[in-house]
Amino acid sequence: MADIELVPNNTLMVSTPEEGRALALKMARLIVKSSQPDADARARQRDVYANDPAMLIALTQTVAIEFSTIAAANNYWR
Amino acid sequence: MADIELVPNNTLMVSTPEEGRALALKMARLIVKSSQPDADARARQRDVYANDPAMLIALTQTVAIEFSTIAAANNYWR
Amino acid sequence: MADIELVPNNTLMVSTPEEGRALALKMARLIVKSSQPDADARARQRDVYANDPAMLIALTQTVAIEFSTIAAANNYWR
Amino acid sequence: MADIELVPNNTLMVSTPEEGRALALKMARLIVKSSQPDADARARQRDVYANDPAMLIALTQTVAIEFSTIAAANNYWR
Amino acid sequence: MADIELVPNNTLMVSTPEEGRALALKMARLIVKSSQPDADARARQRDVYANDPAMLIALTQTVAIEFSTIAAANNYWR
Amino acid sequence: MADIELVPNNTLMVSTPEEGRALALKMARLIVKSSQPDADARARQRDVYANDPAMLIALTQTVAIEFSTIAAANNYWR
Repeated sequence: MADIELVPNNTLMVSTPEEGRALALKMARLIVKSSQPDADARARQRDVYANDPAMLIALTQTVAIEFSTIAAANNYWR
Repeated sequence: MADIELVPNNTLMVSTPEEGRALALKMARLIVKSSQPDADARARQRDVYANDPAMLIALTQTVAIEFSTIAAANNYWR
Repeated sequence: MADIELVPNNTLMVSTPEEGRALALKMARLIVKSSQPDADARARQRDVYANDPAMLIALTQTVAIEFSTIAAANNYWR
Repeated sequence: MADIELVPNNTLMVSTPEEGRALALKMARLIVKSSQPDADARARQRDVYANDPAMLIALTQTVAIEFSTIAAANNYWR
Repeated sequence: MADIELVPNNTLMVSTPEEGRALALKMARLIVKSSQPDADARARQRDVYANDPAMLIALTQTVAIEFSTIAAANNYWR
Repeated sequence: MADIELVPNNTLMVSTPEEGRALALKMARLIVKSSQPDADARARQRDVYANDPAMLIALTQTVAIEFSTIAAANNYWR
């Protein structure tokens, strides 16, 4: 595992749902980066999954789970 | 990642379960859009997954997870 | 996305666990319907997944997630 | 969808974790039954998934999700 | 379904996170056992999934879900 | 199952989200290790999944679930 940052700014606290979604996506990507540190390899993989609806749906599941944690952490921005 | 809106109106607060489901679907689609910004590519993918029961079931899993967050945020519209 | 009802009666409140399970199934099916509005296509797909144990297991995952939300909304019918 | 019982005794309340696991399994099977009412077809499918480790693992995911709801409903039998 | 024990000691209460992980793994295995009671068949399946990274990742999803329930039951061993 | 450590330091309490993500990854890997104790086999598998976007996405789902538990345990580092 590469020694990379896994949580931008090291906090789950963000100001809005919009920022929460962006953080969810980012956190998922950083896990991929930690397992596949080669940027070229990741770029090639992005071409694969961006054109595969099953993989895109799987990605939406990941983001949904990450977001549920971030939303709870921020008390749902109520 | 394209710089697009990820949460309509930047809030999880909606008036009804019906609106909550629509938001869950929309938020999932916006994640797909952020990974695949090409509208034509997404339209082609929609034809694929709309005719593939395994992908449709996977989509229902995503929506179920997104909705659980939205429902909690809205205190289940009790 | 077809403009269809996504939550019957627009409420998560149901009287019993039995009704909660039926609602979970129904809500999942309505997401499929919103992505695949053609009733004949859905009927053909039902024949496919009803005879595919992997898809049936995936369906049970969806229902389990939807039900967790409905059960929490109803305070588990305690 | 066949009109069958989806929750035995129409309650999530059970006395022990052991009963909770059995209920989780049963509730998942009843969803399968509602989508595939033919008992012979289900028996054939059972032979398939019981010999397919990927499907068995998928089944354990379903049971884990159902059980999380049942355990919360019973306050974890604390 | 074979009539086997599904929860060791019939409790979710364990003393440490370490024991909680072991319980999560064990509970998942007992669901497999209940669906595939033949020990030789399970041993053959273990050889398959232990050498298939996709199945191993799927197994980690199951354990993660089971553990979330056990951890909540034990108030996270705070 | 090999008798290995499943939770580093036997605690879910960590100081920061960054450490929480690292713990989530580590706990997932230790489950893999417990099912596949052979280090060479795991290294070969890592080459497989690090180059397979579908498996990497599945891995991100696991980490997301593990992290949700760790984040709750730490009260989201609020």
